[in-house]
Amino acid sequence: MMRVHRSLFDAHVERWVAGLPPGDLHAPMAYLLGLPAKRIRPVLTLMSCELFGGDPRTALDQALAIELFHNFTLMHDDIMDEAPLRRGRPTVHARWNVNTAILSGDAMLVMAYSILGADPSVLETFNRHALEVCAGQQLDMEFERRQDVSLTEYKGMIRLKTAVLLAAALRIGAIRAGAGAEDQERIAAFGEGVGLAFQLRDDLLDAFGDPAHTGKEQGGDLRNGKKTWLLIRGLEVERRRGTDVLRTQLALDPHARRIPTMVAALRDLGVEQEAQAEVQRLADAALDQLHRIDPSGVRVGALRNLAVSLIDRTA
Amino acid sequence: MMRVHRSLFDAHVERWVAGLPPGDLHAPMAYLLGLPAKRIRPVLTLMSCELFGGDPRTALDQALAIELFHNFTLMHDDIMDEAPLRRGRPTVHARWNVNTAILSGDAMLVMAYSILGADPSVLETFNRHALEVCAGQQLDMEFERRQDVSLTEYKGMIRLKTAVLLAAALRIGAIRAGAGAEDQERIAAFGEGVGLAFQLRDDLLDAFGDPAHTGKEQGGDLRNGKKTWLLIRGLEVERRRGTDVLRTQLALDPHARRIPTMVAALRDLGVEQEAQAEVQRLADAALDQLHRIDPSGVRVGALRNLAVSLIDRTA
Repeated sequence: MMRVHRSLFDAHVERWVAGLPPGDLHAPMAYLLGLPAKRIRPVLTLMSCELFGGDPRTALDQALAIELFHNFTLMHDDIMDEAPLRRGRPTVHARWNVNTAILSGDAMLVMAYSILGADPSVLETFNRHALEVCAGQQLDMEFERRQDVSLTEYKGMIRLKTAVLLAAALRIGAIRAGAGAEDQERIAAFGEGVGLAFQLRDDLLDAFGDPAHTGKEQGGDLRNGKKTWLLIRGLEVERRRGTDVLRTQLALDPHARRIPTMVAALRDLGVEQEAQAEVQRLADAALDQLHRIDPSGVRVGALRNLAVSLIDRTA
Repeated sequence: MMRVHRSLFDAHVERWVAGLPPGDLHAPMAYLLGLPAKRIRPVLTLMSCELFGGDPRTALDQALAIELFHNFTLMHDDIMDEAPLRRGRPTVHARWNVNTAILSGDAMLVMAYSILGADPSVLETFNRHALEVCAGQQLDMEFERRQDVSLTEYKGMIRLKTAVLLAAALRIGAIRAGAGAEDQERIAAFGEGVGLAFQLRDDLLDAFGDPAHTGKEQGGDLRNGKKTWLLIRGLEVERRRGTDVLRTQLALDPHARRIPTMVAALRDLGVEQEAQAEVQRLADAALDQLHRIDPSGVRVGALRNLAVSLIDRTA
């Protein structure tokens, strides 16, 4: 079922890209949208629309607007993070230049709104969440400079930066299908929970995943001293226990840090287990929302499978 | 009359700024909106609304959205131009940093849309013109790298980058007042003409204005080799006449260029006179649109005065 939505959406994106004028304002949009991607958000919009009795094809434009918004954030975030690669290919500012990436991103956001404008009923939801995503990116940058980020703050940032856009994608599909207010709240809460669990799973995979599956250096976040759930919690437990393995490693230059030592410390401190339990709690709560929407489990089966595949992934 | 609109709008902006949350996402918005500014665009929205029989207070939110959009473009354009100063004060990226200026600008655009969303009838106009402004900025950057920009191309760029937002400001005021389609076209055409004349006047003031009035170095554009109407036209006439005063100066390093020589050449080539005639033609055509809207001249008097003051200014 998900594959059908994916094909529907891919064809819609291709048509949109084919209609773009030539030139440096639009070429970066075509380039970024042409990179391999999971298209989770737009597929969620179509699935949510169908779940509540709508024809998913009637939500294609809204799904496109959400994917354009997501790609706008990628284009600008990559500038801010000075990232050379995105999905294994040069980022837009690396391939063109920073100015082109700023301006093309701006235009992509405006184009997302042009598409959304056709159905003002979803605008408010979109706007609220769009602003939350900006606030999340702001917190993310702020946390890089701060040493005292708490777990609560971290989860708040992840909620804004990642989870709310999944919630928005689902809620907008529900609105298109004419779902009631209660169902809208439930499907949005489901999306937020899946988003949080997804990100926490990402943190876990960085430290404990198999590089042969993830394709990334094990412990890249630890080497960079990135304040993830694991590191924040690990430092908390160390302070309570009076140990300092993580703190000692973090005091070293990034290239001198011993990643296996840090990974072992996170395990010894019980942080891996704690994080896994947290993922499970978030997933259970999210799936419970699906159950409330459809106690029979028949209509929500596809969404449940997608959520489980996102949360239980090993890569 | 204009002063009333200006006060109305200033109070509205102040209320909006006072309601902004603290933090680096919103502080740059408050800072940029707090710099001295003419507020031409939002005042045009209020005046247009009143012209067509609406209460200008019912267009305050739309005027605010247009001013936020304008400030979003300033924040991002200043990054692209590496401008250290805006209205005599540090630009946002200079006072904070580039990342903050990118993100705060993004959020300001989203907030403009949040405000606009309350009346979807103006969204399409806003979107069309917003995209044109992005395209204009793209052309402006492209022209910096090109040597063969024609007058037609330059006017096309200025239309997109400057004139269409004045047109949008006026059209949105007209839509709020419930003006008919024909009146909407006329007031937009008036705005576009005023915008073009305003920019050409700007080019003229750079070369021929009195630094004591403009507060800027005379011929700054010429020193930077900026392809304005005057320089493009001057080089055209030189090619036809087989002279090369401008070309010889442009071949020198910027600091070695003799500005009085270049200014005199533009005068000798008849370019100053030609540009003044073009400003007059544009102004006449724009004012003719006002005449069609209100042959008595009574209702459009305030807009006429504002247009004339913008076009005939010496600073």
